[in-house]
Amino acid sequence: MKSEIITIGDELLIGQVIDTNSAWLAMQLNNLGIDVYQITSVSDNASHIKSAITEATNRVDLVITTGGLGPTKDDITKHTLCELYGAKLVINQEVLADVERFILARGGVVNERNRKQAEVPNNCKVIRNPIGTAPCLWFDTGGAVLVVLPGVPHEMKAIFEQKLIPQLQPKLAAKAIFIKHKTIHTSGLPESQLADLLHDCETNLPACIKLAYLPSPGFIRLRMTIKADDEEQANSLLAQELTKLEALLGNLIYGYDDDSIELVVGRLLRKLNKTMATAESCTGGKIAHLITSISGSSDYFEGGVVAYSNSIKSNVLGVDKNLIQRNGAVSCEVVEAMAAGVRRVFNTDYAVATSGVAGPNGGSEAKPVGTTWIAVASEKNIISVKYLFGDDRLTNIAKASVFALNMLRKLIISENTGVPQE
Amino acid sequence: MKSEIITIGDELLIGQVIDTNSAWLAMQLNNLGIDVYQITSVSDNASHIKSAITEATNRVDLVITTGGLGPTKDDITKHTLCELYGAKLVINQEVLADVERFILARGGVVNERNRKQAEVPNNCKVIRNPIGTAPCLWFDTGGAVLVVLPGVPHEMKAIFEQKLIPQLQPKLAAKAIFIKHKTIHTSGLPESQLADLLHDCETNLPACIKLAYLPSPGFIRLRMTIKADDEEQANSLLAQELTKLEALLGNLIYGYDDDSIELVVGRLLRKLNKTMATAESCTGGKIAHLITSISGSSDYFEGGVVAYSNSIKSNVLGVDKNLIQRNGAVSCEVVEAMAAGVRRVFNTDYAVATSGVAGPNGGSEAKPVGTTWIAVASEKNIISVKYLFGDDRLTNIAKASVFALNMLRKLIISENTGVPQE
Repeated sequence: MKSEIITIGDELLIGQVIDTNSAWLAMQLNNLGIDVYQITSVSDNASHIKSAITEATNRVDLVITTGGLGPTKDDITKHTLCELYGAKLVINQEVLADVERFILARGGVVNERNRKQAEVPNNCKVIRNPIGTAPCLWFDTGGAVLVVLPGVPHEMKAIFEQKLIPQLQPKLAAKAIFIKHKTIHTSGLPESQLADLLHDCETNLPACIKLAYLPSPGFIRLRMTIKADDEEQANSLLAQELTKLEALLGNLIYGYDDDSIELVVGRLLRKLNKTMATAESCTGGKIAHLITSISGSSDYFEGGVVAYSNSIKSNVLGVDKNLIQRNGAVSCEVVEAMAAGVRRVFNTDYAVATSGVAGPNGGSEAKPVGTTWIAVASEKNIISVKYLFGDDRLTNIAKASVFALNMLRKLIISENTGVPQE
Repeated sequence: MKSEIITIGDELLIGQVIDTNSAWLAMQLNNLGIDVYQITSVSDNASHIKSAITEATNRVDLVITTGGLGPTKDDITKHTLCELYGAKLVINQEVLADVERFILARGGVVNERNRKQAEVPNNCKVIRNPIGTAPCLWFDTGGAVLVVLPGVPHEMKAIFEQKLIPQLQPKLAAKAIFIKHKTIHTSGLPESQLADLLHDCETNLPACIKLAYLPSPGFIRLRMTIKADDEEQANSLLAQELTKLEALLGNLIYGYDDDSIELVVGRLLRKLNKTMATAESCTGGKIAHLITSISGSSDYFEGGVVAYSNSIKSNVLGVDKNLIQRNGAVSCEVVEAMAAGVRRVFNTDYAVATSGVAGPNGGSEAKPVGTTWIAVASEKNIISVKYLFGDDRLTNIAKASVFALNMLRKLIISENTGVPQE
């Protein structure tokens, strides 16, 4: 079964909004065994919407659109579908009741604009929105199925997960092929060196398996994809190749699939019943934000200090003022004192600290933009490493955050298994 | 002049990577007065890449692709273009020198894989990459121009800004129309109420101006777009309509165009020579991260505390333990004590504090998931507000961060102008 995604909205074509809906939908479809052939973004323009939908429904079995169902004037998707299929808009009483209930529950007032959200083309099946006001529309176009979703991400996701998957499943049973991905998360080697390391293994992969490299600031994901008719054979082939990659990659690997470094570190701390704290200068709260984006992180994360000024490094974290004076804030001595300091003040088992020149300004000859010290501390050890990143502020912050958490991961593992981690 | 963007990579079609390149490119093209007609994402599949490029070059004047130029096996864009145009790959000596210089400067070793990045089709113009190893390729296809860029965002951006814009400008002089956007950032009203407020104004907009609503967690952007031949007339028309919208929106507006709430607050603090600090519980470092994502924020941001556990709220911020015991951490009393505490410890003019139930777990009948207290403090005032957000953890964190910074903005303005801010 093949599908396409069409996202609708001027904001996409002028670059004001990044299309996150497509990636989320593509992943969901893939997990259902539905190939995504193409993703297309078009503006709020009736003739372009019509041609994009017509072309896509001619190419594949399932077309999903998002966007243009809101209560404001720029939302034209429903009208355009009526023109395309010669239908007209009619009030759907169930949807109207949903809209009214939804708005009243939040203490709002139902206006004419809200009521218009209950109008739907009279030639489609209506799938109610469990958490918002714009319903989902399902058209059987003769050949392909066209599903029309709202563009607000959390509404789109709720409808897809709660309502659409059950509707799609009967259609899938007949046509699905078996697609499986395995993603390996690595940190520590650049892309071309990673490719050299894996060269022989990659060359000898079975034809049904594809390997892809996905670089991000601080880490590279390796994705193996297998397509096959038989699930069991696919699983065993994938497991076999995974073992080969793991042998080559060793401790460059920090996680798999939906893992992130903050999830992996959190899992380790929870399992060992240990706690941590952060002392951030150049990363400015990003590490704490990553950790606390994980639900349940309060079980192992006590908190942290964003010590942006030198006086906070001294007054809150207890870093000796002379140490800062002598070595500068971006130094081995200061970053280690920050890590030790926050561990003591927050009374935790582990701590990470960062101090660097995030840029684009503030560099010097001795400490150019991108110079970053990272330290991790426990009761027994303090380890610090110096990195030289590039000129881009947000990339430097992201890299330093990933590297800091990966250093902490290695320290925790080595202290709790006795096996040194390179 | 019309353009299309094609992004190439399996990772896009399986949803593993969000396509951020398209939005960035679309914004750049728009700023040059080049309309973007369509954005298309296709997999690393030669026949699909060929058909997408052929269709796009038939529809518009300029087609830009990104992706598939890396050093690994899954990158097939160059080979595919050779097939499409009957060309062959040849080594470009200038690019080879760039590649070698680039890798040696970082202490790396040049391998065969790196050298292959200097191979280019023999029928295109080569535009060197100022910061990476994959060059940009420029094809005059007879009708449209095809520009092939690497997919790594910061390399793609550097080539576009430093090399492509000067190449495109001569082509533009003849064909450009005048497109201008004005974006207004608002916080405080949901979309349908905002649309009601603006209804009459919107209905009476001149036909050449389009108004769009772009909702995000915590704020809604309003975008006015005008398309015209004459720059002066467009500017005056846009200014006229902007004045009408501003009169209706008042203090719901916190910024324009590329502003963000963190940029606006930073600008205010810098201008008034004031400082701030953060005390974050439920937002977990996100507010500090937003503030420090702005270059130069160390001039007004002293730092912050992520006070995730109650003991940190007491020990580091000096919140009375009995206060927490009596009211719970998610309360008016505690969030105000956190704001006052961090202001005192960090010795700043202003402070913000958050305490809430970010979810999805941890709610109770009295304090359901989404309950969030936000406080702002100065020497003279402490103000706190309670919000009830929804069930999604990351949305709640994002909303609370924007609302906290917007409360701070209003406090700073009212204290320094004497004009109370609703």
